[in-house]
Amino acid sequence: MSGPQTPEPTLDGQADASADSPDEDAADGIQHSHRMLSFSDALLSIIATVMILPVTHTEISPEQEFDKSVQRLLATRIAVYLMTFLIVTVAWAAHTRLFQVVGKIDDTLALLNLACMMTITFLPFTFSLMVTFPEVPLGIFLFCMCVIAIGAVQALIVLYAFHFPHLLSPQIEHSAHRGLYRQHILGIIVRGPALCLAAAGFSLFFYPASYLLMATVIFLPYVSKAAGWCRARLVGPREPPAHSVEVFTFDLHEPLSKERVEAFSDGVYAIVATLLILDICEDNVPDAKDVKEKFQGSLVAALGESGPHFLAYFGSFATVGLLWFAHHSLFLHIRRATRPMGLLNTLSLAFVGGLPLAYQQTSAFAQQPRDELESVRVSCAIIFLASIFQFAIWTTALLQEGETLQPSARFGGREHAFMFAKLALYPCASLLAFACTCVLSSFSTAIFHAMQIAVPFAFLLLRLLVRLALAGLRALRGLVGPLLARPAPGAVDEARSPLLPAPC
Amino acid sequence: MSGPQTPEPTLDGQADASADSPDEDAADGIQHSHRMLSFSDALLSIIATVMILPVTHTEISPEQEFDKSVQRLLATRIAVYLMTFLIVTVAWAAHTRLFQVVGKIDDTLALLNLACMMTITFLPFTFSLMVTFPEVPLGIFLFCMCVIAIGAVQALIVLYAFHFPHLLSPQIEHSAHRGLYRQHILGIIVRGPALCLAAAGFSLFFYPASYLLMATVIFLPYVSKAAGWCRARLVGPREPPAHSVEVFTFDLHEPLSKERVEAFSDGVYAIVATLLILDICEDNVPDAKDVKEKFQGSLVAALGESGPHFLAYFGSFATVGLLWFAHHSLFLHIRRATRPMGLLNTLSLAFVGGLPLAYQQTSAFAQQPRDELESVRVSCAIIFLASIFQFAIWTTALLQEGETLQPSARFGGREHAFMFAKLALYPCASLLAFACTCVLSSFSTAIFHAMQIAVPFAFLLLRLLVRLALAGLRALRGLVGPLLARPAPGAVDEARSPLLPAPC
Repeated sequence: MSGPQTPEPTLDGQADASADSPDEDAADGIQHSHRMLSFSDALLSIIATVMILPVTHTEISPEQEFDKSVQRLLATRIAVYLMTFLIVTVAWAAHTRLFQVVGKIDDTLALLNLACMMTITFLPFTFSLMVTFPEVPLGIFLFCMCVIAIGAVQALIVLYAFHFPHLLSPQIEHSAHRGLYRQHILGIIVRGPALCLAAAGFSLFFYPASYLLMATVIFLPYVSKAAGWCRARLVGPREPPAHSVEVFTFDLHEPLSKERVEAFSDGVYAIVATLLILDICEDNVPDAKDVKEKFQGSLVAALGESGPHFLAYFGSFATVGLLWFAHHSLFLHIRRATRPMGLLNTLSLAFVGGLPLAYQQTSAFAQQPRDELESVRVSCAIIFLASIFQFAIWTTALLQEGETLQPSARFGGREHAFMFAKLALYPCASLLAFACTCVLSSFSTAIFHAMQIAVPFAFLLLRLLVRLALAGLRALRGLVGPLLARPAPGAVDEARSPLLPAPC
Repeated sequence: MSGPQTPEPTLDGQADASADSPDEDAADGIQHSHRMLSFSDALLSIIATVMILPVTHTEISPEQEFDKSVQRLLATRIAVYLMTFLIVTVAWAAHTRLFQVVGKIDDTLALLNLACMMTITFLPFTFSLMVTFPEVPLGIFLFCMCVIAIGAVQALIVLYAFHFPHLLSPQIEHSAHRGLYRQHILGIIVRGPALCLAAAGFSLFFYPASYLLMATVIFLPYVSKAAGWCRARLVGPREPPAHSVEVFTFDLHEPLSKERVEAFSDGVYAIVATLLILDICEDNVPDAKDVKEKFQGSLVAALGESGPHFLAYFGSFATVGLLWFAHHSLFLHIRRATRPMGLLNTLSLAFVGGLPLAYQQTSAFAQQPRDELESVRVSCAIIFLASIFQFAIWTTALLQEGETLQPSARFGGREHAFMFAKLALYPCASLLAFACTCVLSSFSTAIFHAMQIAVPFAFLLLRLLVRLALAGLRALRGLVGPLLARPAPGAVDEARSPLLPAPC
């Protein structure tokens, strides 16, 4: 092509580099793992979120009482959803850690990774089996078998990668203690499946013990991290250990890869936004027969019937989109994600995944004033929880701002106030809506929809408002400043030299 | 943190650069568009694919005849699926082109992009309304309104970006003819919506004309590209035009961004793989009552009942995974994607999206020997079409291999034979299975499952086999080579100096 090239909008150094380089690696079948990892992220995030569908599809006919059996069914399904989300997230975190060790892939590794994904996709099924039949040991047995299979595939991946060391991340590839590393990583990978093997054994004669063991497997990473953190607080900051293997242990507990956290979150937000449109398309295209009989052939009247659904859809899409937007803005200012931030992100995402439920609630019960108030409150609560956990990520990041945040977002940075306002908007709006429904309970749906429509505009005007406020502050300082002999240290200077580490 | 850092497995130059730089851009609220684009890709790919769900969820009770009305319903839904896929792909391509012009985003642009996404998610609904009620003009009217809304939002994005030129891609930002560029881009964006406005007008009194106009909108990019290609073939290769605006016209017809094609495809594969597990989880967890009454409390027996489902699930997941794998390998060797390759990729993806249907067919009709043969053949056909279009991408790329392929994958390159074998595997296997069902029609399901299980192993052994074959060839050449005075030009030399442009 002879025309000048438009530079690609995305700056994927790797893809371009490999396009221009003699691609010796590709010729040997060795590839950077970037695309495989984003595919895995997409797959895992969708699997984690998609279990909300059985919850939203729980059919409650209008005349049916919202009785014990329905409540029990709903509660079971919500529990399955939340636990599945957590379990898949744990599997995802393990996958992330594994591919921090394995830096490149070849065809065999790509196929092994697919096998690993396949076993992971089976987890939700075994888990819902386990919850539906809590007294039958088969469910937990299958679940444990699944975890063991995942462990076996991951162990295979590690063994294969250490057999061809050029596949490892450079740091390990050039280390002298490679054998020790392998031992150590295998130990970490096999830990969970070994516990599950014991659980599977127990399930045959004393299943409560298996549940206990299983809970240990799921919460192990968080517990061990929390323990390490407490120890570090009590004993003081960790010193660089003497042995290289210990350095490596530490490395494996490294903050999560920020890019993979983003990719996983994107997947969850994207699938949640799409579940909404799926419901619209499946349920709200009126039946040709109905239109003829009920509405005398008037399609407009038939569509008008499901008007509240569309309103709820727009509101929910806006909510999901803006929560993504807040997440996007937040991670733009984050340098690296620590483990607690990852956990908070998971919790936030789990509630984002609950948004289709909120949508279902507000649209399904829109005609029934009896349940209206309750469903609007549930929706407010879900939105509040999803957004407050985002806010908590930000708060946690501020605790270690030197490590985790970009200079401009730290205390006193130029974007600090704006980020704060952005993340506080949804928690405040949902709380406000909740409070309003307590006072004006008969207008609850109207309040909820007004909130969903007002927030996007608030986001659009937010920068303007914050800028105005800051300009006002600055003008005030300009007036007051000359009167004071010494300017306040920190705030102003730092904003001008954002590379300076923030004073702790 | 004091320990040495594990290098990130992914090489996102951009994210790292912004993490280390003083992030002046981020401080002004200007961001690289990378993450927003991958989120948009995920959203659009899921919307495109998710319309297969109404097709697979078409309920046909076992006793019901597969009669005309069901056939009509199924055909309608499949048509909706395919057309929706195409339409969303067109919208995606327009989005890609738009963000080749707009290089960076700020908060307002991110929000505008969300608004654009929201209008696009509404397309499938209006479209299925249009298909369900072809004679009622409301469907097409709403569809046109939707396209106009998308166009309006995109025009807003362009106007905003040209108002703050630092958001544009550098080439346009520093151009002297910026005003002309704006005019030109707006013209391209408004073209489709203007036609739709006319279609909406026609829909009020003479709707067949609107369908014609609408078809024009959808196929316009492909038609204009094909016309350009034909002209280029007839008149000869294009010369660099004199006016810069014309250069720009040419630029906008640039090959698609390879990374975005990959991201979109990943989304489709991921959602297809996940739809399968969703079906498993929703339908195959046996009911507690059923287990007690039908199977005397034996969960194993109840699960055994749906054994064929699990087999079909594993087979389908393997198929989707391996098609992704072939796609991944293919795009690893592709430097840039041209428009015809993009179209072929879309077609391949549309059939990949049909795989859940194949799964449903093979598992739902597994008990009914009457329809078994037919459903296995449909499945084979879907797999064949999905894989043959992948193969066609490769063939098309070979036509312009100097531009589109990495040196090692070109004719005579080291990976050429291997890539050929990889991409030919699924078309051959599905054809073979189809042929077998013609001969041994009573074993059709067994043949199909055997095929699905054999192919992964073939992939694992493929490199070995191809290597063996190549080593045999090389040994042969080693024996024959010294006897020949002059080695054959091209093939061997090129493999050794892969940077050399391939002889056309």
